[in-house]
Amino acid sequence: MIRLFVPQDLAPGYGVILTLDQSRYLTSVMRQAIGAQVLLFNGRDGEWTATLTETGKRGSLLKVDEQVRPMALGPDLDLVIALVKRGRVETIVEKAAELGVRRVRLTITRRTNVDFVKLGRLDAIAMEAAEQTGRLDVPAVDDPQKLAEILDGWDPARKLVFCDEAGDARPAFQALAGSQAPAAILIGPEGGFSPEEREALRALPFVIPVSLGPRILRADTAAISALTLWQAAVGDWREG
Amino acid sequence: MIRLFVPQDLAPGYGVILTLDQSRYLTSVMRQAIGAQVLLFNGRDGEWTATLTETGKRGSLLKVDEQVRPMALGPDLDLVIALVKRGRVETIVEKAAELGVRRVRLTITRRTNVDFVKLGRLDAIAMEAAEQTGRLDVPAVDDPQKLAEILDGWDPARKLVFCDEAGDARPAFQALAGSQAPAAILIGPEGGFSPEEREALRALPFVIPVSLGPRILRADTAAISALTLWQAAVGDWREG
Repeated sequence: MIRLFVPQDLAPGYGVILTLDQSRYLTSVMRQAIGAQVLLFNGRDGEWTATLTETGKRGSLLKVDEQVRPMALGPDLDLVIALVKRGRVETIVEKAAELGVRRVRLTITRRTNVDFVKLGRLDAIAMEAAEQTGRLDVPAVDDPQKLAEILDGWDPARKLVFCDEAGDARPAFQALAGSQAPAAILIGPEGGFSPEEREALRALPFVIPVSLGPRILRADTAAISALTLWQAAVGDWREG
Repeated sequence: MIRLFVPQDLAPGYGVILTLDQSRYLTSVMRQAIGAQVLLFNGRDGEWTATLTETGKRGSLLKVDEQVRPMALGPDLDLVIALVKRGRVETIVEKAAELGVRRVRLTITRRTNVDFVKLGRLDAIAMEAAEQTGRLDVPAVDDPQKLAEILDGWDPARKLVFCDEAGDARPAFQALAGSQAPAAILIGPEGGFSPEEREALRALPFVIPVSLGPRILRADTAAISALTLWQAAVGDWREG
């Protein structure tokens, strides 16, 4: 069934007006007519069935029926990622949503040579990926911030998983086993972290350095692999 | 240093003529001039340094210097993947090269609704990804073949890791721990395998069903996550 994220509160009998984009997607692309059922979620109230009651050029109206899943969040996992080329940042945001990341923090490091990003487009990608993957919230995508500023304000209770391609770190699954949420994965730019950045990171008490195998990985691959291994070792891919 | 895959034999003093594409990349894009050093590999003879000795509109010539790494292959891992949209197949081939896959086999399943693929373009993507990731071979990409035919000709010594989104399979890392190469990862189409396909797969003695967490993953994400977990549990990302 089609799933849509909406900002409105969800409760039995409530009316929901879709955005023009969502309305067009629902009626023109997916060819849904009055009476069709969809699933709605808003990041707060779980998942609800709703019925399409009005369509038109100025939007569509849905009536909320009943809750089918109570609200639940995945493990508390963030992703901190150095800005890379637009296509790869878009891939990373989409995959972060599928792999259960709550918040994507874009960062500027010493060797980052990209300084522009369309946050609106990344938000739309995060929303669509959340709709398709079945989660009940949408990951936030933060404005780019300098790495030093992010580290200065870091909550030491949150482990920072540093994917260190240059070092002698332990393989990620073994390094992560036994650690706990909250956590964040940190992925550097295509040129890697500078020696000063590496040294600073490895001296921080909340940092867990990890290795991602013997081959050089592009930033998007490193992000997906590290998120996967965290979910398998610590998160909701573990044996229940 | 720039790495290039070439088909020719590599030995001290040998001359290597680059293709026009590689020559243009080396001299125009990367602005290398006569005397520049590059790394060459051919999938058989390891990795060698070579010196650019001639450039011109009709190509470039290199002279092979010395071997810097002996030939070595990663663990014997294939990927069998249902055809999906072009952009996602291209992502999958690139990531398969980075994650150490030896052979990508494209397959047509009951719910596959894509029947066209440009193999030449996929070969080029595999080669470029192999050059950048540092491996000493380039993964082969096979012509699409029906799933039933692939399974009929399967070598039972090769484990087939079946990413079963519909089932009660164990989490991938735990399901794979203790198994051995050779292996292949099997990823279905966006609509999943049909019930008949699932039943047939789960009845095969060489199949290991695995689960990839509680969220629905797109085919490219599932492929990258499953390859990562295999490398971490069985392959060359293990603790050495």
